[in-house]
Amino acid sequence: MASATHLLTDELDIVIPTIRNLDFLEMWRPFLQPYHLIIVQDGDPSKTIKVPDGFDYELYNRNDINRILGPRSSCISFKDSACRCFGYMVSKKKYIFTIDDDCFVAQDPAGKPVNALEQHIKNLLSPSTPFFFNTLYDPYRDGADFVRGYPFSLREGVPTAVSHGLWLNIPDYDAPTQLVKPLERNTRFVDAVLTIPKGTLFPMCGMNLGFDRDLIGPAMYFGLMGDGQPIGRYDDMWAGWCIKVICDHLGLGVKTGLPYIYHSKASNPFVNLRKEYKGIFWQEEIIPFFQAAVLPKDCTTVQACYVELSKQVKEKLGKVDPYFDKLAEAMVTWIEAWDELNPTGPGAKLANGKAK
Amino acid sequence: MASATHLLTDELDIVIPTIRNLDFLEMWRPFLQPYHLIIVQDGDPSKTIKVPDGFDYELYNRNDINRILGPRSSCISFKDSACRCFGYMVSKKKYIFTIDDDCFVAQDPAGKPVNALEQHIKNLLSPSTPFFFNTLYDPYRDGADFVRGYPFSLREGVPTAVSHGLWLNIPDYDAPTQLVKPLERNTRFVDAVLTIPKGTLFPMCGMNLGFDRDLIGPAMYFGLMGDGQPIGRYDDMWAGWCIKVICDHLGLGVKTGLPYIYHSKASNPFVNLRKEYKGIFWQEEIIPFFQAAVLPKDCTTVQACYVELSKQVKEKLGKVDPYFDKLAEAMVTWIEAWDELNPTGPGAKLANGKAK
Repeated sequence: MASATHLLTDELDIVIPTIRNLDFLEMWRPFLQPYHLIIVQDGDPSKTIKVPDGFDYELYNRNDINRILGPRSSCISFKDSACRCFGYMVSKKKYIFTIDDDCFVAQDPAGKPVNALEQHIKNLLSPSTPFFFNTLYDPYRDGADFVRGYPFSLREGVPTAVSHGLWLNIPDYDAPTQLVKPLERNTRFVDAVLTIPKGTLFPMCGMNLGFDRDLIGPAMYFGLMGDGQPIGRYDDMWAGWCIKVICDHLGLGVKTGLPYIYHSKASNPFVNLRKEYKGIFWQEEIIPFFQAAVLPKDCTTVQACYVELSKQVKEKLGKVDPYFDKLAEAMVTWIEAWDELNPTGPGAKLANGKAK
Repeated sequence: MASATHLLTDELDIVIPTIRNLDFLEMWRPFLQPYHLIIVQDGDPSKTIKVPDGFDYELYNRNDINRILGPRSSCISFKDSACRCFGYMVSKKKYIFTIDDDCFVAQDPAGKPVNALEQHIKNLLSPSTPFFFNTLYDPYRDGADFVRGYPFSLREGVPTAVSHGLWLNIPDYDAPTQLVKPLERNTRFVDAVLTIPKGTLFPMCGMNLGFDRDLIGPAMYFGLMGDGQPIGRYDDMWAGWCIKVICDHLGLGVKTGLPYIYHSKASNPFVNLRKEYKGIFWQEEIIPFFQAAVLPKDCTTVQACYVELSKQVKEKLGKVDPYFDKLAEAMVTWIEAWDELNPTGPGAKLANGKAK
């Protein structure tokens, strides 16, 4: 594989949600400067966000989102990092890497800085193996392969849609766990990438995430969180449950493991508890819902799958709380907005700027 | 957890199939000497197997197997390490650790010898999480926990029935992969243990394996392999598919990952190809069979599950090759022999020697 600084620079956008100056990018400069950034400014749009010199970027604040989406901007969360998904929608690239602004470059056990983006690209460019577990983890990595007993018919794998990276230092714990274990730090560097098997859900964290926008983009909706909503900190979880059900249906893969980033600062567990409170109850009903969700065979596009899922959310989760009715509607609005900004069909490639 | 040399010494047997002197135990002495060994001698019963001084062991050769099981000895393979499962049957202990005689003590990345048995015990004594994937791997390890978004109702986990360990140096490849990659060595020490999700099958290797005999023992049958059979090297695979389907049905967990052993010597790929040849074709039908297998709710014991599975094997795989009719019958014979040597009900604990 080519040197990291030249990998897919024309085909990948980096999406960063933020409310502050992006000083954290200084540390990432050797790895991220060759790429285009899409900055989604959350909160007060009159505030100026400083971006370190030399980075190529576009920045959208709330006024921009309202102007571009009009009434459909209601589907984009405010005062919550869930707003990042607006960046996925306006990107014209095939791949997205999204990262939080409190995430620094991790070191591997030998002390070498980890090029997280390079590893995400490796994960996304190699197939996934969702139908059977390989005990030596990702069989496509150097020095690994399929082990004895792995069916040969499954060794071609399936396209990888999502690469979920992990975090050293501050682990991604919920508020109750943060409260109980305030001093716990993740120091275990697990040198593995693996496919999450078909039929298995996982808690997808948005802090350090890569995905193939062409394969799964329209399902990467981070829901209604934050300002005016009864819940927060479930934006990435919601997206993770949706994308996993759709990837399973469409025969796409989701990988987790490497790369690590260094997560610098724990968020306030009391604030988090307030945001998560309802989610702690709701997830007990949401997860069985997603575990049981079946998509009809005629749903062959991500959009069709997502709209179908929105109907099932309304029907099955609407009973849990009226919030899910609103969310189901926002899922449809999101798809409408996505399709408006990303037209398909004859001439679409030209119209949406993808043509060279 | 207490010092390794005192962990469960009264509750665990080490089962070793072999055709040669057990010199390899010298290296394991600090870790394994406190335990009782069950040696299953394969091949010529007139040969004497030397066991290093100081080890407490019982040894069974083919004459012993024939004498103890009578006509039912037909279910125990000959001239194949599948014979090891006889050791599981005659053990009276709760836990089994089985290891091949070409496996040495591995070193962790810091150069410290890995106490494989201690890690298997840790794996078996902590719960498994088959219903939802935890991205920081085993949540019960020191320094780890359940991540944000993991349902609280699932954090109790389920009992762990099987601990599947891995191999540094010579990876457990099939003959075609051995032929293609003769020089590949596994040097990647992945510091992780994880639960194989419910509904997902995996290739279980018998080289370095721990399990809870009380929970899953009767399903740990290594099939008909070797002498007089059309196939070899699928003994552990067969057991792995069976135990996974039964663990999923009974709500038991299967973990894989740590501990590593150092696998010293690749077996001959040409010999292996001859043994595996039919299996390479058959596994393409066996795996969909196991993926689709459903056990009735009234199968609430391992024995009942296993006998039911044998019926399904006969019905569905008998068409693939008459071998599977024989195998299905051997599965029933195995359960009959197991139950004879391991009686249950009033007085059984006394009768089978488990009482203190």
